[in-house]
Amino acid sequence: MKPTIRVTIWNEYRHETTKPNVQELYPQGMHGAIAAGLIGDFAIRTATLEEPEHGLSEVVLAETDVLIWWGHVAHKEVSDAIVDRVASRVLQGMGLIALHSSHYAKVFRKLMGTSCSLLYRDEGEKERLWVTAPSHPIAEGIPPYFELAHEEMYGEFFDIPSPDEVVFTSWFEGGNVFRSGCCFHRGQGKIFYFRPGHELYPTYHDTNVLRVISNAVRWAAPVQREPLRFGKSVPALEPIRAMYK
Amino acid sequence: MKPTIRVTIWNEYRHETTKPNVQELYPQGMHGAIAAGLIGDFAIRTATLEEPEHGLSEVVLAETDVLIWWGHVAHKEVSDAIVDRVASRVLQGMGLIALHSSHYAKVFRKLMGTSCSLLYRDEGEKERLWVTAPSHPIAEGIPPYFELAHEEMYGEFFDIPSPDEVVFTSWFEGGNVFRSGCCFHRGQGKIFYFRPGHELYPTYHDTNVLRVISNAVRWAAPVQREPLRFGKSVPALEPIRAMYK
Amino acid sequence: MKPTIRVTIWNEYRHETTKPNVQELYPQGMHGAIAAGLIGDFAIRTATLEEPEHGLSEVVLAETDVLIWWGHVAHKEVSDAIVDRVASRVLQGMGLIALHSSHYAKVFRKLMGTSCSLLYRDEGEKERLWVTAPSHPIAEGIPPYFELAHEEMYGEFFDIPSPDEVVFTSWFEGGNVFRSGCCFHRGQGKIFYFRPGHELYPTYHDTNVLRVISNAVRWAAPVQREPLRFGKSVPALEPIRAMYK
Amino acid sequence: MKPTIRVTIWNEYRHETTKPNVQELYPQGMHGAIAAGLIGDFAIRTATLEEPEHGLSEVVLAETDVLIWWGHVAHKEVSDAIVDRVASRVLQGMGLIALHSSHYAKVFRKLMGTSCSLLYRDEGEKERLWVTAPSHPIAEGIPPYFELAHEEMYGEFFDIPSPDEVVFTSWFEGGNVFRSGCCFHRGQGKIFYFRPGHELYPTYHDTNVLRVISNAVRWAAPVQREPLRFGKSVPALEPIRAMYK
Repeated sequence: MKPTIRVTIWNEYRHETTKPNVQELYPQGMHGAIAAGLIGDFAIRTATLEEPEHGLSEVVLAETDVLIWWGHVAHKEVSDAIVDRVASRVLQGMGLIALHSSHYAKVFRKLMGTSCSLLYRDEGEKERLWVTAPSHPIAEGIPPYFELAHEEMYGEFFDIPSPDEVVFTSWFEGGNVFRSGCCFHRGQGKIFYFRPGHELYPTYHDTNVLRVISNAVRWAAPVQREPLRFGKSVPALEPIRAMYK
Repeated sequence: MKPTIRVTIWNEYRHETTKPNVQELYPQGMHGAIAAGLIGDFAIRTATLEEPEHGLSEVVLAETDVLIWWGHVAHKEVSDAIVDRVASRVLQGMGLIALHSSHYAKVFRKLMGTSCSLLYRDEGEKERLWVTAPSHPIAEGIPPYFELAHEEMYGEFFDIPSPDEVVFTSWFEGGNVFRSGCCFHRGQGKIFYFRPGHELYPTYHDTNVLRVISNAVRWAAPVQREPLRFGKSVPALEPIRAMYK
Repeated sequence: MKPTIRVTIWNEYRHETTKPNVQELYPQGMHGAIAAGLIGDFAIRTATLEEPEHGLSEVVLAETDVLIWWGHVAHKEVSDAIVDRVASRVLQGMGLIALHSSHYAKVFRKLMGTSCSLLYRDEGEKERLWVTAPSHPIAEGIPPYFELAHEEMYGEFFDIPSPDEVVFTSWFEGGNVFRSGCCFHRGQGKIFYFRPGHELYPTYHDTNVLRVISNAVRWAAPVQREPLRFGKSVPALEPIRAMYK
Repeated sequence: MKPTIRVTIWNEYRHETTKPNVQELYPQGMHGAIAAGLIGDFAIRTATLEEPEHGLSEVVLAETDVLIWWGHVAHKEVSDAIVDRVASRVLQGMGLIALHSSHYAKVFRKLMGTSCSLLYRDEGEKERLWVTAPSHPIAEGIPPYFELAHEEMYGEFFDIPSPDEVVFTSWFEGGNVFRSGCCFHRGQGKIFYFRPGHELYPTYHDTNVLRVISNAVRWAAPVQREPLRFGKSVPALEPIRAMYK
């Protein structure tokens, strides 16, 4: 039987504390809304930028199976040491779910190796997310498409490595498309980028959005294996016959 | 008709200047051997670590379609500014061919986002490279497999992102396997990692090895397109009907 | 230097001979329009359903590097023997470009192994094709997006295997998205599916469409290698020490 | 909580009834050995070639979440109608695990669309399977590599579509390599090909082999979604403004 998955939801928690309209939408922060909305056998904690070590101490990360990340205006305030710590943990097996503007989070860019740039426009237009990988566990329980009445637009070209799977592809009212649900395997860890979630809209109260994130947590939870070992010369497993000179 | 491809071969050029047995194998450096052995409509120059800006000035890179890279003991001596410059050029379209121990080159690790670690062993064992993507242009003219009588072993797990194509898979006498020819698309650029090429062996005099690198240069040459443009809000291409609140 | 690529353009050639509005758009057939519009070092011939062996004799296929296919209402009239012949040639290295309604062509379905179903709607709506693989040679010379003022809609979920690369993703006025330019490697051959091309619209007179098909011909041309050999037991390349019982 | 997974293990069951040495290894058939060795919350039944409808009636398939398949000498005796039935169910969501010589099973070839050919040799040599996708759930609990003392060799090039993930890569004593654990997504279903399992060796009594198959059952179990709907024209979700002529 699968153990309880330990989830840490990280939020820079800046818009909610400075903009009244965001505060009204997310009185407990977006991390609070997500924590309240996830459905599954999860043990959830939250962490924010202003906490010591951004709430992501070695201990917290060691006890985290899947880390959810939301950042936007304060990417630069995240310390490089914490970024390195999180990235290392992902390569060792911790799942990472990067939400919306976290495409530009230091840790996501570091793990992708590309600019992670994209086109954008915030006019509150309609987004329709189509399932383009119906056999994928992140699509479980999701209809062929679902709509968000108002969202910021993110458009292609999205400068990421070719995802291992593209679970959702978005249609935008203003004429753009986007790979909105992207899976990556890195080291012993898994990464899911999920596009929706501009702070001005009630996206993290949407049933389908919360279901996708819940599914993604299950998908991204670590497989149980011994740690990867590297960095030293290994003996031969079979006899080597020919010597060079 | 395709234009001449401008190739820059970069080598840290350290072993050849310090170890007599390497110098004997590669009197002109490994970069010299590769430059002499490439076959195609190429305009070739070379660059080395000790040159100003490591020989990779803005001008040189602007005039480079495909950069070949060999580094090993001096990865740390490569300046971060040059690494950033090279990585940017790759995302803008310049091809990159990373050879052998360059799996640990700063620029390769930066573009991959993973540790790029692997198992290794230098006992001069036999390597046999099998073609596992026979429709790929990098496999053109290559038999179903070819052998290198003596090579350093690199073994799985190789901590890279899932390659977009795996053109070669190696069998090693000592009992290991390795994804030896790996293609990646990053931004507007293409990257090929090719495993063989330990400095102690005459690998860069091997016909098949040189043919693979020549094919890879053609494959990695930039497609001609306008530069990617990012980083600013874009207007809607279609009317947006519903306003939020 | 690359040799001239021998292209055969196959068309069921039914709509053009039965519907006046299609005949007006394509007086030489869609195959004729494509033949006239391709740009490159190509030796082009055409073939149609009504010819003996549908114009695809062993000799013709043996002299074909890349086969372009357009079919729609007469998929069932294509003989299974010819389908098998074409599929075999693809696995042996011949490129295949399947256009528009050829997603349902017997040979495409056979090579995909899936239903190749999709959603569709013919209301002559606007299609906008976004480049989602800017480093791919099929995107050479193509702007970040291009539009077709009127097209039939094809929408996701498109029941194909995950493409090896998705070069174009379409936005449709009526609210759908589609993976419109899909690359597949099969055996020693390459396959490109390109979505646009409903017979009622002047799609095959569009500059960007013709450029994409021209690029795809170059991409799909066979690499020069010895034929794949299978189906017989092979001797060991290395000594086998332990015998079973 | 995940429901019990309903597994059907299909075996042609020919070698075990005709060859004493195979019968000795697998007195209950290979299907029996696998049924006894799977570990998980599974409801298992078996089916064999000689049963009516090969034991794969509509009812049985409707009640099957994951089908395991072993065939070799009697591929041709499997009726095309049953093959079509199984393939359809896979596209609708049923998982399929194809073992060893089932690379040539009609249903596997149909779903792959390629020849599924490979090199082979039966000299009972050593096989060592390396994990090349350590974050994949099928690798759970598996060490970095495991060995089978005696197996038939299958070697590259293996003529399959590029797998969506390659979980294992095999080293063979006789000098070959092979992609031994291959994942494919097709329609709403998932397919896993797993190489080991020649009838002459005790492979299906091996702990790691049984663990891999158990993991694969969990991975291949269907996601719960409404069935894919195709084949009819769909209305526009958004207004279409411009009419063609």
